[in-house]
Amino acid sequence: MTTDPFLQAAIEEARAGRAEGGIPIGAALVHDGVILGRGHNRRVQMGSAIRHGETDALERAGRQPAAVYQASVMYTTLSPCSMCTGAILLYGIPKVVIGENRTFLGEEALLAERGVEVVVLDDVTCIEMMTEFIAAEPSLWNEDIGELD
Amino acid sequence: MTTDPFLQAAIEEARAGRAEGGIPIGAALVHDGVILGRGHNRRVQMGSAIRHGETDALERAGRQPAAVYQASVMYTTLSPCSMCTGAILLYGIPKVVIGENRTFLGEEALLAERGVEVVVLDDVTCIEMMTEFIAAEPSLWNEDIGELD
Repeated sequence: MTTDPFLQAAIEEARAGRAEGGIPIGAALVHDGVILGRGHNRRVQMGSAIRHGETDALERAGRQPAAVYQASVMYTTLSPCSMCTGAILLYGIPKVVIGENRTFLGEEALLAERGVEVVVLDDVTCIEMMTEFIAAEPSLWNEDIGELD
Repeated sequence: MTTDPFLQAAIEEARAGRAEGGIPIGAALVHDGVILGRGHNRRVQMGSAIRHGETDALERAGRQPAAVYQASVMYTTLSPCSMCTGAILLYGIPKVVIGENRTFLGEEALLAERGVEVVVLDDVTCIEMMTEFIAAEPSLWNEDIGELD
């Protein structure tokens, strides 16, 4: 179990999403040790194509000045997909802390190439959540990452 | 003035956004000659950090199977930012038609590198809308693209 309170917040978001019948991925945008926004994937709950964990956390953080994003850290339970990577790059978020990248490897190479610090925690809880979910809901998972079913 | 009905739909969305006090960027997701979703930037209107033209069009198109995205075209009045580029890559949208890239050059090189067909129309109406907006609202524009003001 993680002792990082921000990854823990992201995990709680992921669990809340799963309890709602959704996809268990959560995230938290952190600035100066304070969570500005925390969120989770809402594809099922909102019928949304763009509310992934990270984009939902950004949306819930509300409109922030560029200087805030540029001094923030994005915590996420899962390696960020292309869209969430693009959102991180758009706002110049300099650091991303990732729960795990074993069940899905997103655009970590692109983040690193653009100078974003990428930390992968290889967290057992995050791996277990996604492993269980992908086995239970393979079609829903494929839809979320744009893969043919 | 464009004779392309899908770029015209994106321009109408952009104009609607400006009339609402927002940022004049619009988009339309088109599949088999039918618009699945059209949208515009809603930063001001919804206090949103993630509703750009393209992501709003995707959201309004609702949940679609991967096969639909992979046979669709994204029309947008402005060169797509990192986030919208990432959304296009996530869903494997194979073609993007862009009104203009003179007032803002997004991630067209990344799109092309990943095999997406990129068409830039250099449309005068799109250039004029953004030129007027950026001159009138420079701080709002900087916020939208994550630039320090």
